[in-house]
Amino acid sequence: MRERAADASYQGVPGAYSEEAARALLGASARLLARPTLEATFGAVAAGDARTAVVPVENCLTGAVPNAYELLFSHDLRAVGETRVRIDHVLAAPPGVRLAEVTRVMSHPVALAQCRRFFAAHPGIEPVSVFDTAGAVEMVVCEADGRSAALASRRSADLYGAVIIAERFQDHVENWTRFLLVAREDRDADVAEGCKALMTFGLPHVPGALRAALVPLAEAGVNLTRIHSQPVHGQPFEYRFILEITAPAGLEVQQALRRLRDVTVDLRVFGAYACSGVTV
Amino acid sequence: MRERAADASYQGVPGAYSEEAARALLGASARLLARPTLEATFGAVAAGDARTAVVPVENCLTGAVPNAYELLFSHDLRAVGETRVRIDHVLAAPPGVRLAEVTRVMSHPVALAQCRRFFAAHPGIEPVSVFDTAGAVEMVVCEADGRSAALASRRSADLYGAVIIAERFQDHVENWTRFLLVAREDRDADVAEGCKALMTFGLPHVPGALRAALVPLAEAGVNLTRIHSQPVHGQPFEYRFILEITAPAGLEVQQALRRLRDVTVDLRVFGAYACSGVTV
Repeated sequence: MRERAADASYQGVPGAYSEEAARALLGASARLLARPTLEATFGAVAAGDARTAVVPVENCLTGAVPNAYELLFSHDLRAVGETRVRIDHVLAAPPGVRLAEVTRVMSHPVALAQCRRFFAAHPGIEPVSVFDTAGAVEMVVCEADGRSAALASRRSADLYGAVIIAERFQDHVENWTRFLLVAREDRDADVAEGCKALMTFGLPHVPGALRAALVPLAEAGVNLTRIHSQPVHGQPFEYRFILEITAPAGLEVQQALRRLRDVTVDLRVFGAYACSGVTV
Repeated sequence: MRERAADASYQGVPGAYSEEAARALLGASARLLARPTLEATFGAVAAGDARTAVVPVENCLTGAVPNAYELLFSHDLRAVGETRVRIDHVLAAPPGVRLAEVTRVMSHPVALAQCRRFFAAHPGIEPVSVFDTAGAVEMVVCEADGRSAALASRRSADLYGAVIIAERFQDHVENWTRFLLVAREDRDADVAEGCKALMTFGLPHVPGALRAALVPLAEAGVNLTRIHSQPVHGQPFEYRFILEITAPAGLEVQQALRRLRDVTVDLRVFGAYACSGVTV
């Protein structure tokens, strides 16, 4: 680790929801490193430019963030913390632009997908995918072409001198994104009481294989909070399973994981963490 | 059902991969109805303008197609067939445009996500999300602005008079999309031997709830081909489970589903179908 390594990398530019998540997890004075892509955000930790990364993994309207778990696993990083951030988009434009003049709305593709109804109701407005919500505000203010607006947080509109021309137009008011704090760890995590843990495994192709894998977890009183079949690249319609669990009191969880190893293929535990710093 | 109802609706315009899937499922002479969005594609069946719809549900590189299962469930339609189509994108542009001149690449967001490496290697090229791959070819040929290209099938490039300026640049050569044929059916499907079936249920919040749900399926020899936690809108980080199964020989499956109903909340079977017409 370099002496001047940042506390955390995040995807986007200042004003991004990921920056908000990083402040919630690491405090207001954390030194943060903005990166343009999720790949570069994980890469900053792998390269030692940042001690941790704060990455979105799931939105409650659109589901899993594409590529986030794959990158975590492929960089062999570990989840060490978790937080949830309320997402509340506004439509931001340079001063003087009115909603009726807007023909392009730029934002992160996941943010665009959270506002399907708006785009369905405004077929003359083209959604344009860019790398970041706050980055989209910076771009439309810089270009000021009189027809582009950005979908982003209220805070990013303030930061880049944009004006809010529409609000409350996401598909559902209950719009939250879950972020993981990830770090380099040399070994699989110990799963302690009250922890959440993230793991992945393959299964043999026999009926009942998943049930067999869930038996040791259920017998240890583990609560399964999320399960997901993840496509394996290069092997069409072959899957690995991604599980997130919450560990109960007692030491049974380590035993359960040992038993799980016997009935799965290539079990890997990618971290154990508490959920903290929920921001509303 | 109207007399002039089409055989199937699909999302996109002629040349779309969905049209290819529809031809594979229903034959070359099927009367097809092109619709601009997935919502309108499902809506055409609900309204009786088409007897069936052919909809993409999963890609082996990018996972579940956002919103596809939600729309199937919310329209209370049933899956009655399945096929897989090989996806092989080319970069198509109006005649005369060279790759070095391209600064915008338009396509469906799922197609853009299948070519991450290309965009990472070409930061000067902006990916722009539009409603359809083939529709993107039609747009760039029509606009002919000298700097836009489309990511789509070889066939759609031919159809709209575009020239292929790059090929073989998707992230992985093994790129397949799975499509369901959906129709109006008044009741839950009978799951017969060799069938695949699609179902969804909620679970009580207790450790072991999913394992308990998988017991009757495993005991009946059912093979679980895919499982997915689906966020429930309006209830952040609450999930329903989506399962796809393959039924074994024998009548045990109906009994298993009855037992499954006892240990789940609001079990619904959204169809049983054979996988047919795989196109390469």
